[in-house]
Amino acid sequence: MRIVQKFGGSSVADADSIKRVARRVVATKAEGNDVVVVISAMGDTTDELMDLAKQVSPDPRPRELDMLLTAGERISAALLAMAINDLGYDARSFTGSQAGVITTAAHGDARIIDITPGRIKSALEDEDIVIVAGFQGVSQTTKDVTTLGRGASDTTAVALAAALGADYCEIYTDVAGVFTADPRIVPSARRIPQIGYEEMLEMAASGAKVLHLRCVEYARREHVPVHVRSSFSDKPGTWVKDIETKEDSVEQPIISAVAHDRSEAKITIVGVPDVIGNASRIFRAIAAADINVDMIVQNVSTVHDGRTDISFTLPQSAEKEALAALAAIKAEVGFEDVIFNAAIGKVSVIGVGMRTHPGVTARFFEALAAAGVNIDMISTSEIRISVAVASENVDKAVQAAHTAFELDAEDEAIVYAGTGR
Amino acid sequence: MRIVQKFGGSSVADADSIKRVARRVVATKAEGNDVVVVISAMGDTTDELMDLAKQVSPDPRPRELDMLLTAGERISAALLAMAINDLGYDARSFTGSQAGVITTAAHGDARIIDITPGRIKSALEDEDIVIVAGFQGVSQTTKDVTTLGRGASDTTAVALAAALGADYCEIYTDVAGVFTADPRIVPSARRIPQIGYEEMLEMAASGAKVLHLRCVEYARREHVPVHVRSSFSDKPGTWVKDIETKEDSVEQPIISAVAHDRSEAKITIVGVPDVIGNASRIFRAIAAADINVDMIVQNVSTVHDGRTDISFTLPQSAEKEALAALAAIKAEVGFEDVIFNAAIGKVSVIGVGMRTHPGVTARFFEALAAAGVNIDMISTSEIRISVAVASENVDKAVQAAHTAFELDAEDEAIVYAGTGR
Repeated sequence: MRIVQKFGGSSVADADSIKRVARRVVATKAEGNDVVVVISAMGDTTDELMDLAKQVSPDPRPRELDMLLTAGERISAALLAMAINDLGYDARSFTGSQAGVITTAAHGDARIIDITPGRIKSALEDEDIVIVAGFQGVSQTTKDVTTLGRGASDTTAVALAAALGADYCEIYTDVAGVFTADPRIVPSARRIPQIGYEEMLEMAASGAKVLHLRCVEYARREHVPVHVRSSFSDKPGTWVKDIETKEDSVEQPIISAVAHDRSEAKITIVGVPDVIGNASRIFRAIAAADINVDMIVQNVSTVHDGRTDISFTLPQSAEKEALAALAAIKAEVGFEDVIFNAAIGKVSVIGVGMRTHPGVTARFFEALAAAGVNIDMISTSEIRISVAVASENVDKAVQAAHTAFELDAEDEAIVYAGTGR
Repeated sequence: MRIVQKFGGSSVADADSIKRVARRVVATKAEGNDVVVVISAMGDTTDELMDLAKQVSPDPRPRELDMLLTAGERISAALLAMAINDLGYDARSFTGSQAGVITTAAHGDARIIDITPGRIKSALEDEDIVIVAGFQGVSQTTKDVTTLGRGASDTTAVALAAALGADYCEIYTDVAGVFTADPRIVPSARRIPQIGYEEMLEMAASGAKVLHLRCVEYARREHVPVHVRSSFSDKPGTWVKDIETKEDSVEQPIISAVAHDRSEAKITIVGVPDVIGNASRIFRAIAAADINVDMIVQNVSTVHDGRTDISFTLPQSAEKEALAALAAIKAEVGFEDVIFNAAIGKVSVIGVGMRTHPGVTARFFEALAAAGVNIDMISTSEIRISVAVASENVDKAVQAAHTAFELDAEDEAIVYAGTGR
């Protein structure tokens, strides 16, 4: 088998952790597999390098920041190779550039365009264990070193698995897999043994942090099976893969998981003249500021004096840009006021089962009502229902939904109501 | 003008030092020059990385060690570029590999084979300040990242200056230039305003640490003028260059400087049968162990019972290898014993003036005798006389020679006895 393994920064925090990772990698190799390892920077390295950068320049250029930060994974990759060599196995480390990770030129947030893994393949032919510095690549146009943005080491691992025709990709992390809800909120949450790409995509987009959206998109597009598992245990975690065979599809729950997201905020634009084109003016300005809008509500019922309110959610981090963009069009649109509210949260139920099961929305909303949770906004996809609620109600809402859809661990036997999908 | 500047680790120990270097670089650029900067790793970075390596493996592979250690210069190069950008100038950092520093594959001690500075040239055409990570390159054959061994950042700077057709290369260091002797031993030692490549080569080979031998060899071969100067002052330092024009040659002293070296040791092989071929057997064994022998004395006068003693000097660091090599041929050669003595030092007087001035040897030895220093061994080149003395006599010997050749600062007017070279 050919296996790509990815270890995050918490798995390589110090020399002892690196040695532990080395033993795990060697164990996989000893079973007769080809092994490629993608590694993040050690624990705090990236933060420390960022501190240094801020000391020499309050606003370092992205090209140089990438040059600086990529040193972090280079260090951990070399150290892991040494630790593996010390166990009597041959290992070679490669930078993203050497590994053939070709990206766009967008420093700090580059995307993988292509993988040209010639050097990796020849190292694998030599029976070497290959270590690749994650989070980095080389720009196709400028040949400069790039970093790939959040969650990028996972994406590197999946992209390499696809390019190398690996049998699967293991993502080692500090949690035991993907859960039916955040166990810190729902103690009875269960590990999901396997989940399809679409559901995992919706979960990542709804605030589940275990896998990054881009990584799941890549895995779905290239049909790479991904095994998310704990780096502190040998137990299986969650397989993210195509779920199509009879064997896999036996018993799908209606709802697979409840996700939540506290990183969003709500903007309400008060007193927008109810004139054709005003809504599009507003959202064109927001889009031009590169802000992702999630839910939108126009309170048609509250039209008074030919004016209405428009609300939408956006990442909290985009507050400044959004308010500036709206201020710039205030005169043109003629609205009265803008209210920014960061005290909201998003709760989502996700499951392919809802395609064949009517009544999911009703059951979700009834559970929220029974828990005394007021719904502020709603958005849906074919396999997801999301609501915005007040932040103080997020935990309550997640717990209520988890119970309503029979996801709690003690009900495990009932949960798998056969849907045949 | 096109200028290459090199700053060592002590010049970039922390964020403030990096900012100070940035101001100096910018000042050179502001005068209208093309500027290429070669930079070492920050202060203790290399030691810290080496510590990490030792924690994961007692004997890390050289390829991985190079991958690890090169992160150090990458970090300082990126930080310096940021600091320069912050002053309103455009700067771009490059790794050794990106800068086109092509080397042998000897990890940890690679040599520069070629420089292909395409990316640097195009950055200079864009009027950018170019920052190059020193001490590193890329192997011509394996394409792996290499480090260049001791003093290599200086060599990188000189090699880049040659490849870029730079007008000169500035080496910034923690001393004010090249001195007539080590000022810690001879308080009246003077800075040498300019010195020829040959004399500088002999000085580097005789223990003067300010410039590394390889760097001077490269500069001489490529006729690159090198300005060695303090990074803590704006005063001129020492120019190392071709000294051929009338203007330059006006007043050459007989002896330019006194150098010393405490890193050597002496091995005496006692009771070697005085048979043809025995000396060559011994030195073939030493050479096969890759040990550089400096002085050799065969005590012909002490032959007794058809046996003689052979003494030679070698780096102290080669003790173990030398003794092992000799033990392996003891039976074959039939010598009686080996004595290792690290308590020696080498004192050299260097000057092109001795080519045209007879009597230098006599004056040197008389001075040593007057100071009560016994000479143990002697070796000479066309422009150098070296003696091995007991370590406790090194300071006394350097002081005596410095005075005898009228190098002391108060005699400066007399020192420049015209020799016409």
